[in-house]
Amino acid sequence: MTQIEPIVRGKAPFDTRRLDGLMDEAGLDAIIATSKHNVQYLLGGYRFFFFDTMDAMGTSRYLPAVVYRRGRPEETVYVGCGMESFERDLGSLWPEALDLGNTGTQATARQVVEHLRRLGNGIRRVGLEAPFIPADADRLIRAGLGNADIVDATVPLERLRAIKTSAEIACLRQASEKVVASMLATFRACRPGESKREIAERLRREEVCRGLVFDYCLITAGTSLNRAPSDQIIARGDIISLDSGANERGYIGDLCRMGVLGPPDSELEDLLGFVEEVQQAARRRVRAGAPGRDVVSIGHDLVAASPHKPYTHYMAHGMGLVSHEAPRLADMPRFSYTGDDAARPLEAGMVLSIETTMAHPRRGFIKLEDTILVTEAGHEALGDGGRGWNVIEW
Amino acid sequence: MTQIEPIVRGKAPFDTRRLDGLMDEAGLDAIIATSKHNVQYLLGGYRFFFFDTMDAMGTSRYLPAVVYRRGRPEETVYVGCGMESFERDLGSLWPEALDLGNTGTQATARQVVEHLRRLGNGIRRVGLEAPFIPADADRLIRAGLGNADIVDATVPLERLRAIKTSAEIACLRQASEKVVASMLATFRACRPGESKREIAERLRREEVCRGLVFDYCLITAGTSLNRAPSDQIIARGDIISLDSGANERGYIGDLCRMGVLGPPDSELEDLLGFVEEVQQAARRRVRAGAPGRDVVSIGHDLVAASPHKPYTHYMAHGMGLVSHEAPRLADMPRFSYTGDDAARPLEAGMVLSIETTMAHPRRGFIKLEDTILVTEAGHEALGDGGRGWNVIEW
Repeated sequence: MTQIEPIVRGKAPFDTRRLDGLMDEAGLDAIIATSKHNVQYLLGGYRFFFFDTMDAMGTSRYLPAVVYRRGRPEETVYVGCGMESFERDLGSLWPEALDLGNTGTQATARQVVEHLRRLGNGIRRVGLEAPFIPADADRLIRAGLGNADIVDATVPLERLRAIKTSAEIACLRQASEKVVASMLATFRACRPGESKREIAERLRREEVCRGLVFDYCLITAGTSLNRAPSDQIIARGDIISLDSGANERGYIGDLCRMGVLGPPDSELEDLLGFVEEVQQAARRRVRAGAPGRDVVSIGHDLVAASPHKPYTHYMAHGMGLVSHEAPRLADMPRFSYTGDDAARPLEAGMVLSIETTMAHPRRGFIKLEDTILVTEAGHEALGDGGRGWNVIEW
Repeated sequence: MTQIEPIVRGKAPFDTRRLDGLMDEAGLDAIIATSKHNVQYLLGGYRFFFFDTMDAMGTSRYLPAVVYRRGRPEETVYVGCGMESFERDLGSLWPEALDLGNTGTQATARQVVEHLRRLGNGIRRVGLEAPFIPADADRLIRAGLGNADIVDATVPLERLRAIKTSAEIACLRQASEKVVASMLATFRACRPGESKREIAERLRREEVCRGLVFDYCLITAGTSLNRAPSDQIIARGDIISLDSGANERGYIGDLCRMGVLGPPDSELEDLLGFVEEVQQAARRRVRAGAPGRDVVSIGHDLVAASPHKPYTHYMAHGMGLVSHEAPRLADMPRFSYTGDDAARPLEAGMVLSIETTMAHPRRGFIKLEDTILVTEAGHEALGDGGRGWNVIEW
């Protein structure tokens, strides 16, 4: 994985003033980032390729860490593993201080503690990522920094990532366009008699051969509402939904498109037409300055006023390095998050995922999911092709 | 990801007597498994496809958990996420007790606590995976199980996986053969003027198009010892090493093969010949009953007695769902593990990775890595093709 921002040794490739402000609000003197997404963000797009998809090693795991001190970007340290010296030698890492020694949760924790101690007594409140730091590393850090308050920094780090740079938007555009192109190629190749598993595997290869890293494929066929790849065989007349995530340098394209084996009947046209109506009404509400909640309420209102209410679900959420991230526009109890950004205005550079899902009891699963970039003037839809019925002929 | 063992609801798809014995030795009444590899193992190969490569969601992450009580496999519970009801409906999950509710570290922890409390007072010592359980989940579990001792169970869970079943061996064989076939196809397509990044990307696609999940590619070219994919251009006469991991249903194929753009000279033949000599001597020591350390010492001895000692490194380690796992045959301080299995006899069904690495100061990086299955009679090499110089013609 290569950097997405230009890397200059000693120069932070992200908006340090924004991070300093968020840390100030949260009363944080230093942050220890250990999630893949936040480490990548703070390193300007760098993610060590060897541990891109896995992390276990021996009886422990790879645990990268970026330690950032408020107002002192030049003191940033990156704790990685020995093999990352290859990337250091290629100029891929911006921090002056690099600890590329041992791999393992406890080794990383000890190096983080050592570094924070070296920074001295000014560090009184340290934020870390409680859901993304292993228990053994957390314990060593708390024991090692006995005098400091250790608190959670998940939210300020998430807010730091909410407004995307042009390089990030380019990745999201690429990811979205390639996911949709892969879906259209996959639909075109579908034949009656194939299994959902075969179709999902074809989509995976289409995405990878376009340069993406495949994350997942949810797929339904016919009138079934089961979205797991399986041995279910598709037949003529079946509708097919493909909802897939794949990433370009970590930035996720996540869209849903519909296909049908043969011409769709008028009821199918009407159902997808309603889904499309909701999607279009929602994106029209998107512009810098509009309250985030407007994008949610319009969809809920349209669904609530329709005959499709009992089986239709609408939602909107931010996306980027994480498939649900800021702006968080509505509570999602099943995903353990709250819609803290609903009352805040949207800002140019935010990227939203907007999804209308119909679990139709008689006709099957009908859904569109779109990726919408917030602009000053309104919005831009990324990867916006193939939004009607993609008719499969064979 | 589909199961690799046949799934029958209520019937544990792994050796519960072996696990009970390991728990008894460690004094554990219950185990909470939360790493991807151990959850997959305890579920007979099942790993939820949606979170196969990523896990972040909102401000938390997906955290699956298997709770197993010693001697009571029928009380096993699996805590997953809502979307896994699709897999439950397909019969992919064996435990009777399934908590497929909310996604998130704290939600999982609360469900684990509730389940363990329901099991009653007999649970006095609980093992969890300290490097693989997030700090916030760990804290909730400790607070919720105030009366129980909470200890680390990483090692007993690793030992449980050390001897592979025939289904696991089949996955490892497939993975190894496909990785090597992908390497040979990648070498054949190499042309002077290409970059290492392009070659690594070609290997990724070759592996994915053979059905594997790509994990990583280390690559060197010419006399450089830098193993990261980069813009370095390959030229005629260059040697190329490809060291790649890719998995079949989670089981990693990890091998290294050598190519050369044009005919290798006699020094290159001699150098790879020495590497091959070490590799062959090592595998000849492999058989059920032989002490694990023999496989390590033979390689070390041969390297130490050779003129290549200053730039040659030898190692051997177990592999499976994790690229370095039991049997751990030698200390690997850089990977934070100790060679606890060196004194133990090898057992049939163990799978070893054996690697001889020459970082030659003048000729470049020359390495072979092989996958060796321990059998009663001796060994079987998985994916054993392409072990000489693969000469690239163009």
